[in-house]
Parts: sequence; structure tokens; C-alpha cells
Amino acid sequence: MKKTFLKNKKNIQFLIIGLGLIGGSVAKRLSKNGFEVLAIDKNKSYLNNAKKSKTIIGSLEKIESSKKLLLVVALPPKVILNRFDEYLDYFYEAEFITDCTSVKESLLNKIRTKKLESKFILSHPIAGSEKSGFFNSKEDLFQDKISIISKHKGLSNSTLQICKEFWSELGSKTHYLDPKLHDKVFSLTSHVPHIVAFSLISLFSKRKISEYKKFIGGGLKDFTRIAESDPLMWENIFSLNKKNLLKDISEFEKEIKKIKEFILQGNEKKLEEHLKKIRKTKESLNR
Amino acid sequence: MKKTFLKNKKNIQFLIIGLGLIGGSVAKRLSKNGFEVLAIDKNKSYLNNAKKSKTIIGSLEKIESSKKLLLVVALPPKVILNRFDEYLDYFYEAEFITDCTSVKESLLNKIRTKKLESKFILSHPIAGSEKSGFFNSKEDLFQDKISIISKHKGLSNSTLQICKEFWSELGSKTHYLDPKLHDKVFSLTSHVPHIVAFSLISLFSKRKISEYKKFIGGGLKDFTRIAESDPLMWENIFSLNKKNLLKDISEFEKEIKKIKEFILQGNEKKLEEHLKKIRKTKESLNR
Repeated sequence: MKKTFLKNKKNIQFLIIGLGLIGGSVAKRLSKNGFEVLAIDKNKSYLNNAKKSKTIIGSLEKIESSKKLLLVVALPPKVILNRFDEYLDYFYEAEFITDCTSVKESLLNKIRTKKLESKFILSHPIAGSEKSGFFNSKEDLFQDKISIISKHKGLSNSTLQICKEFWSELGSKTHYLDPKLHDKVFSLTSHVPHIVAFSLISLFSKRKISEYKKFIGGGLKDFTRIAESDPLMWENIFSLNKKNLLKDISEFEKEIKKIKEFILQGNEKKLEEHLKKIRKTKESLNR
Repeated sequence: MKKTFLKNKKNIQFLIIGLGLIGGSVAKRLSKNGFEVLAIDKNKSYLNNAKKSKTIIGSLEKIESSKKLLLVVALPPKVILNRFDEYLDYFYEAEFITDCTSVKESLLNKIRTKKLESKFILSHPIAGSEKSGFFNSKEDLFQDKISIISKHKGLSNSTLQICKEFWSELGSKTHYLDPKLHDKVFSLTSHVPHIVAFSLISLFSKRKISEYKKFIGGGLKDFTRIAESDPLMWENIFSLNKKNLLKDISEFEKEIKKIKEFILQGNEKKLEEHLKKIRKTKESLNR
């Protein structure tokens, strides 16, 4: 992709708010690509380590008003909302702001309230790990992944262009998805699966784990990974995507009940037919 | 492991009943190891292909009464029960019989009724794939995997020894697990996760799939794989492990409801605490 806005690297400073898995990975790649990166985080060891390794050149004290300030907010979605006013001065000062979260509508409302809609653009990289924190971050986290840009009304053309160039710098492809539809889609493709994984692992808390752990094979292994994900972030996501989630969870409960009823009634034929239909749905998701 | 019973290969014939993913993989490895392998399957193309590739030397017509007949029944669990009488002559003729299924108690009852308990031993390799059928089978499917031997009362020592040597021939380690406990453990570690995966994928049948499929990332990908598994086999497993499953599904439903209630009430603190507790359970499963 042809870089217009991010071409003159000397003229730009990136400020990363939140230097965890996502923010740290953004910072590592941007500094590797030759950008000046600043960061703030309440975790001092993250900041010290990032400075030592030359991932960042410093924090707020290093902002130079002669340079363009581009902001990447890499905090859990509710934390952004709660601390929005705290960062407001930097938001107004910046030329560009994006987030990295998995819930969009509530943040968009906040952006509108604060009249930041021309320069604050919603991003969501479909990349991550169940391992959180700066020490798990890596420069190639976004490489060959998809990052979603949720365009909204009132966005300036330059903001959109910077956003595309930004994700391209990180090695990521971009797709557009309307903010409302984003929250609906991710409720089903990501948030419900996490609720399900958490619930499944929770079942083991009442069992004698030594009896089970030797025999965790195919089925469960796939679920356990995401149940290690950051509790605070997922509480944030679940709370903010409440409306879509409650609807989807209810539908999921009906699906579980359907299979349960088939088993209870010994309705083997219908059960097999139902599973066959599901395999077809799965195939159409693969295609 | 020192081979006693499987040492003199010339003196042994293996008969595989059911030449699908599991049976085919057993046959491929045994013939590679220099054993004579026979097989029966209602799918003629499986048999023809296996003969052409020298995986098997033939079918029932090749049984030599001067050799020891060792039987591996690699059929879905309910299919074994339903066709048990059909194979009874071979069971009586054989020196050793084992199955490869994921449900034990019902088969053990059948074995007792037919007075086969000294030579029919219950096995369950924790290996497999969502891809079923002979054409997906491979000689190293069991390599470095765990195979469970569910010992029961009345088993002869030689049967147990042959079983251990058999799985060792396939490259697999063995663990003992009581048949009743086996079904309880696998209900939670494998059968419920499959029900959950099937249910999750089923949700998509009511949606506009094109809107979703581009955005299937971390969370859902893990679930979709096992939802491709063989419908007949899983109907068999669900039906036969009914008692354990209904109990576990009810517990799972309660877990889902718990998270739903926290979201509904906006009880952020309790939700985060709950997720933290689950992460701890996950960690103790890893240890």
C-alpha cells in the first residue's frame, strides 16, 4: 500500500495508551519500522522494559508539539470509557486516534458526545492470544491478520487513510464493518464462544481434577486455551456487548436444550439428522 | 516394551471389523509392522483400496484356523452393540478382542451377557480426527498418543498383556481407567465439549453466513473443528452415555446461566471474580 500520511516518519510520534499484549505489540512493530513511539501504562515495569529495549523512547514528557501526534488506545473497552476524560487533552491534541477493542457501539457514542468523530476511528485487530501483558507482546502479532475498521459518519478522509496505513505498517489487512454490525457479528463469533469456554472449564472446579487431567484430549483442549484469556478484558467485553450477547446466549441455550431433549427422548434418528445439518452449516462456514 | 504374545508374527492374524479412520489406521500400522491383517467393512471401496495398497491381505476368506485370531472392532459404539450377534462366531473363535470406542459401560454389559469377559477387553485410543473414513486414516494416528485400557473383572492376564502389546505396536502409551469412571470422565472432557461445539455452529444456520465467515477468528475457530466430526458416531456416543451426559449438560446449563445473570444484572465485580476463578481452574488443569 502506498503510504501518504505515514511516509515522513521523522514528523510523527505515536503515543500508545496501554502497553499490554496489544499495545506492546503495536509499539514493537512501529519502533522496528523506524517510528518514534511513546507510551503510558500504570505498570512501571512494562514501561521500563519497553524503554530499555528501545521499544519506546519515553512517555508523555517526550511529546514534541512540532510533530504530528497519532494515538493508539490499547485498553480494555470499558477502561477506555471510564478513563476517557483523563485522556481528553491528548485526544484533542492528537491528529489521529484509534482503539483496538472488540466492542464498538458504546465507544462510538462516547466519541460523538465528545465531538471527536472526525479523528477518532474504530479499529479491531482480529489477533491476540490467551497470554496477556507486555511480556507476551510481539512485533509480528498482526502480521497477515485482518484488522477491522468500523467506519462511522463524520469521519474525515485523512483519518480513514491514516488508519489504513497504520494497520498496513503492522502487516495487517483491513476490512470494513459497520459498528453496529460489528458488535452483532463478534457477539456470535467471539464473545459467546468465550462464555461457553469459560463455562465449560468452570465445570471442573467441582470435580476431582486429578481424575480428569490425564484424559483431556481432542474435544476439551480446543476450549481450554481461550478460557485462559484476561478476565478483566472479557468482563469488559461481556458487559458492553450486553444486548447482543443476551440474545445470542438465549439462542445458544435453546440449541443445547434441543440436543438434550433428543438424548432424553432417545430420539436417535432426529439427533443424527440434527448433527448432519450442523455439519453442513460448518461446511458452509469453511467455504 | 517386551513383546511376548505378539513376538511370533507369522503365527498371528489380525481381523479389523470396520475399516474407517480408526480401523484403517490400525490396519496400516499393523501391516507396516509386518502383521497379517484382514478386514471387513460394508464399504467395498475401502476394502478394495486397502487390498490394493497391501494394507490388508483380504477378508474373512483369508482366516487360517491354525493361526491365532486377534480382533479389533473399530465401529461406532452403538453399531457394535446392534451387530454384536452378527460377529459372535468370530468373537468366540478369536483369542483376543478389543474395541476402540468412547463409551464403555453398555459394551461391558453386552460382553458379560455373552460370557466373553475373559478375552474381550475395552480400549479407547485418545486419538482421532474430525475427518472420518478409511481415506483419512494414517499409520501414525496413535503414535505418542494415550490409549485407555478399561480393565474389568474376569479378564484373563493374557488378554491384558496382548492389549498392552497391541497398543505399543501402534506407538501408543497405555493408561488404565475403570469402565464406569471412563464414561464419567469422557462425558465431561469430550462428549459435552462436542455437544457445545455442535450447538454453537448450529446458531449460524439461522444467520446470513456471508456476514460472519470473514470474521471467524480466535474464539470460534477452535470450536468449528470438532463440529465436523462424524454425526453417526456422535449420535451413538451421546445416546449410550446418556446418564452421565444429562447430568453434565444440566450443570453446564447452570454455568451458562450464571454468567448470563451477571451480565443481565450488570454485576461487573462478580463477573470478573468468576472469570478469575475459572482461569485458576484452567491453570490447575494445565499443571
